[in-house]
Amino acid sequence: MLSSVRFLARSFSTPSSFPKKTKALKTLLTSNELTFLMEAHNGLSARIVQEAGFSGIWGSGLSISAQLGVRDSNEASWTQVLDVLEFMSDATTIPILLDGDTGYGNFNNARRLVRKLEQRGVAGVCLEDKLFPKTNSLLDDGRQTLADVDEFALKIRACKDAQSDKDFCVVARVEALIAGWPMEEAVRRALAYASAGADAVLMHSKKSDPSDIEGFMAEWHKVGAPAPVVIVPTKYYKTPTKRFEEIGVSTVIWANHNMRASVKAMQDISNKIFKDQNLLDVEGRVATVKEVFRLQGMDELKTAEGKYLPGDGSNIGE
Amino acid sequence: MLSSVRFLARSFSTPSSFPKKTKALKTLLTSNELTFLMEAHNGLSARIVQEAGFSGIWGSGLSISAQLGVRDSNEASWTQVLDVLEFMSDATTIPILLDGDTGYGNFNNARRLVRKLEQRGVAGVCLEDKLFPKTNSLLDDGRQTLADVDEFALKIRACKDAQSDKDFCVVARVEALIAGWPMEEAVRRALAYASAGADAVLMHSKKSDPSDIEGFMAEWHKVGAPAPVVIVPTKYYKTPTKRFEEIGVSTVIWANHNMRASVKAMQDISNKIFKDQNLLDVEGRVATVKEVFRLQGMDELKTAEGKYLPGDGSNIGE
Amino acid sequence: MLSSVRFLARSFSTPSSFPKKTKALKTLLTSNELTFLMEAHNGLSARIVQEAGFSGIWGSGLSISAQLGVRDSNEASWTQVLDVLEFMSDATTIPILLDGDTGYGNFNNARRLVRKLEQRGVAGVCLEDKLFPKTNSLLDDGRQTLADVDEFALKIRACKDAQSDKDFCVVARVEALIAGWPMEEAVRRALAYASAGADAVLMHSKKSDPSDIEGFMAEWHKVGAPAPVVIVPTKYYKTPTKRFEEIGVSTVIWANHNMRASVKAMQDISNKIFKDQNLLDVEGRVATVKEVFRLQGMDELKTAEGKYLPGDGSNIGE
Amino acid sequence: MLSSVRFLARSFSTPSSFPKKTKALKTLLTSNELTFLMEAHNGLSARIVQEAGFSGIWGSGLSISAQLGVRDSNEASWTQVLDVLEFMSDATTIPILLDGDTGYGNFNNARRLVRKLEQRGVAGVCLEDKLFPKTNSLLDDGRQTLADVDEFALKIRACKDAQSDKDFCVVARVEALIAGWPMEEAVRRALAYASAGADAVLMHSKKSDPSDIEGFMAEWHKVGAPAPVVIVPTKYYKTPTKRFEEIGVSTVIWANHNMRASVKAMQDISNKIFKDQNLLDVEGRVATVKEVFRLQGMDELKTAEGKYLPGDGSNIGE
Repeated sequence: MLSSVRFLARSFSTPSSFPKKTKALKTLLTSNELTFLMEAHNGLSARIVQEAGFSGIWGSGLSISAQLGVRDSNEASWTQVLDVLEFMSDATTIPILLDGDTGYGNFNNARRLVRKLEQRGVAGVCLEDKLFPKTNSLLDDGRQTLADVDEFALKIRACKDAQSDKDFCVVARVEALIAGWPMEEAVRRALAYASAGADAVLMHSKKSDPSDIEGFMAEWHKVGAPAPVVIVPTKYYKTPTKRFEEIGVSTVIWANHNMRASVKAMQDISNKIFKDQNLLDVEGRVATVKEVFRLQGMDELKTAEGKYLPGDGSNIGE
Repeated sequence: MLSSVRFLARSFSTPSSFPKKTKALKTLLTSNELTFLMEAHNGLSARIVQEAGFSGIWGSGLSISAQLGVRDSNEASWTQVLDVLEFMSDATTIPILLDGDTGYGNFNNARRLVRKLEQRGVAGVCLEDKLFPKTNSLLDDGRQTLADVDEFALKIRACKDAQSDKDFCVVARVEALIAGWPMEEAVRRALAYASAGADAVLMHSKKSDPSDIEGFMAEWHKVGAPAPVVIVPTKYYKTPTKRFEEIGVSTVIWANHNMRASVKAMQDISNKIFKDQNLLDVEGRVATVKEVFRLQGMDELKTAEGKYLPGDGSNIGE
Repeated sequence: MLSSVRFLARSFSTPSSFPKKTKALKTLLTSNELTFLMEAHNGLSARIVQEAGFSGIWGSGLSISAQLGVRDSNEASWTQVLDVLEFMSDATTIPILLDGDTGYGNFNNARRLVRKLEQRGVAGVCLEDKLFPKTNSLLDDGRQTLADVDEFALKIRACKDAQSDKDFCVVARVEALIAGWPMEEAVRRALAYASAGADAVLMHSKKSDPSDIEGFMAEWHKVGAPAPVVIVPTKYYKTPTKRFEEIGVSTVIWANHNMRASVKAMQDISNKIFKDQNLLDVEGRVATVKEVFRLQGMDELKTAEGKYLPGDGSNIGE
Repeated sequence: MLSSVRFLARSFSTPSSFPKKTKALKTLLTSNELTFLMEAHNGLSARIVQEAGFSGIWGSGLSISAQLGVRDSNEASWTQVLDVLEFMSDATTIPILLDGDTGYGNFNNARRLVRKLEQRGVAGVCLEDKLFPKTNSLLDDGRQTLADVDEFALKIRACKDAQSDKDFCVVARVEALIAGWPMEEAVRRALAYASAGADAVLMHSKKSDPSDIEGFMAEWHKVGAPAPVVIVPTKYYKTPTKRFEEIGVSTVIWANHNMRASVKAMQDISNKIFKDQNLLDVEGRVATVKEVFRLQGMDELKTAEGKYLPGDGSNIGE
């Protein structure tokens, strides 16, 4: 749990007082241990992920679009997504990997995104080899059209060339298996993206068992496993985590569960309050206002008011 | 629950196909029945409030700042708050009353806000008679400085003069009791604001019993109750709702419970996933991905793709 | 020239006190007279266009990207463009037609744009049948790829179906001649877009003589001229305007001349001040500060301060 | 003039390839030579200032509000101003000093601004000791209320404590003389702000002669001139620049002349085109489209397309 002292440090000390976020993400992706990223979709959930102990955050495109109230089809502009990420980054000291869809256009749009993310302290971006505007991978669509492999590899390269911090991470997400292509195509694409400079490859699958991932990892090791592999077991969640470790997965993303937990909780509480027309059974089931203040870091502000407001430290207004 | 047909209507039909939001809020505030507004803080929670059956939404300043990850002290700019409200309004057909703090400056800032809210389909704004930048009323501060009563009354008047839709609602929030002033001051201010054109008065109290509100309502009726009264029983939540009805309150705001429910749910699920390192016991405790798609209105988009994309309706990309 | 009274009306009276902007644009496009739209790229230039007497404004994509300092290749997000348009619309009472590039994505992105423009009081949008991200049409490129004609026609249809104000205008810009296609293709596309509901067709040409436009107009009349025709004579500017009238053009856009005038003026004054290291010969060559205050509408604010600030009308600060 | 090679460097190389902007501004303020900042108000004018040879840019509050089409009274939110500054910073490699009004609220708002400016590569901010919302200093107002000197000094301190880059500059603007206070008050305030850590003091005057500034400099030297002095000779522009050098001024700001030059140029060209209804006499009086493309850095994009788009380098569209 963040003490107020730690919060103060976060908010207004120099960046150098914390391990660099980009370096932290790179270490996380390339370490020999299985590591985990937990989804967040706004400043509040990002803070909660950090306090739970996770070492990194997944800025989920589905969750961010859902919390905004729009669809996961690039309805929010890329700068609206960027604004959400900025709040998330400001609220935390652990690295964030943004689910950056297709990069919101061609190589030029994608490399602009990289520079803007770097400025906001976001540690990395994951780009997927689909077409703009995107469609969520878990929808029961027919075969979704993939990006041309060469164009997408060059997009990855353009992003790597554009970054000013050598540790900023670009992860290439392969949608071939989702789109119904055979394993060879998935491997071919993963190789091309790794060659283009991707810091990791995210292999996506919507099977309810891990056979896609197992198959890919077997092939990936045969070609020397030139980049760490990230997975998103939203559909094959019953697979024991130990299995992912065995087959050499680097990082597991718990992709949308904070958002989905909040949906259930808010539906329950809204329905209950609507029916009860009172809060009698509600107070104990929700976080206290005091806890919310703590999460917002009110202590740091009180301390700062004592330091930077003249007289008795009360808000003299202006 | 919104059917996909109703969602379609919401998103892309003419505004005239729904009762005007401003008119709906005015009716809600002035009706003889006790009515309720439920807090929301982004598009997702706003949609959930609507689906639960509520007839109006409270755009809580505390909840919005908390979800963004900042403090309830005007750390987010007024246009950043406006952007949140736009997503909320786009996601719903019921009226939203924004907790607009002090109006983010003087009368000129406040009246600009009114015009911007009207454009985004927000039905009303509640302004409080404190100073910019604001401090949350529930903090254990010393006496918070109030705005000059004449200046604040003129601010209300400026907002009423600025609105282009006659049904847009401006609610004046009286902080006198919170700030430790006697009942006379609260009544004097409420009267001044009602005279200036406020569509309702929000009398705030942070006592854990309803004596403040009971006292005010008694005095208010003596002076002819010139405007409907809105209350926020966050602290005196144990008071039976029936009591509010008896003393003539118009509208009750459940001020921050969706945000607080989501905090608890996200803390629980994040802690659990961090500890378990798997999702085995998680899936049944959170909303399904399919339910999230439904809330986002994916059905309408699928229908539209069938209508507006050539060929087989698949995303041909562009 | 706007009197301060007219300004006051603009800023804070009801929209109904002015002819509706959408209706004004539709009238302008469909009138029997040759009409003109003059480019603007921010609130200031929009106000200047209005004061010069023009009845409509062209929100140029090239000029807006140039003033922002980015390239005309969708480097600014669509919401960043929207923010510019909102300032332009707030500063004026005459209609604005936005140069909306390709609609910033597929039909769904385009129809969202329409709803957002309507909210901000923008009267219409012009969409071009190219691919996202766009390239400026005047660049010496090889043949630029055009959008599929059916897909683009359906995009136009989706926008028309999405608008809530029946007078909002969607103009379809045909890039066939720019892209090197024969006249038949230009006519085929213009017909398809008109059939899909386009309120007008913009036929673009980068020849330095009007032969493209003359050729098109001849063919267009043969097929019954099913929609008004808009042109942009940036390259064939030597053609007498009377010629456009003779061949039945509806509206002429002066597409980027305010921005280009400002570039020359700012380059001259910056170079001069850098060299002179004083302002002695500068003051007479630039607008006065007083004139700037007038353009900003300071009179209205002074009047409002007298009305809405207590005491002596001075800014008491808050 | 920027060559396209230099532009390429600007846009997509590492920041380290240029002298740090913050360091450059600090050097400029503290050097023994008289230095100059030239006003800009968007990305385009910022690029023009840099190409003219200036070593720094003044991000004028008046000019930015004017170009947006609003009044210099904090009508644009601080994040809307920040967005303008981000485009300006992205378009240039020389340092920008933002005219940050009062810091848009209290110490907490001001220090948040500092962190956000640092992220965007803005080199410094100038804060003035007035009250939020501000009024332009050149208006013929009665005496404008000043901020409490202690509160403002602590605001400066809070900003200095918040910056993460030790070279970020905070300039304290003294409005005492503008507001009608005697010289003693101006000196008292300048001293207090320098003691609080201000990197420079901006002494403002709206007299048409330099007597205010001469008087202040005399007193300032008596107290040891503890900080560099910046001036804005908009009203006393007839004073020879040599005089400022003689009395020990550090930096002169040409505060709004690009914006005022653009107003005159756009009024002239709009009036002319409206009257002529053609462009015959216009083309030679405005910058060419080609020059605009050069300013936007199209060359770099063409080169990048050759590098990052597969095949023939044409825009394949995605």
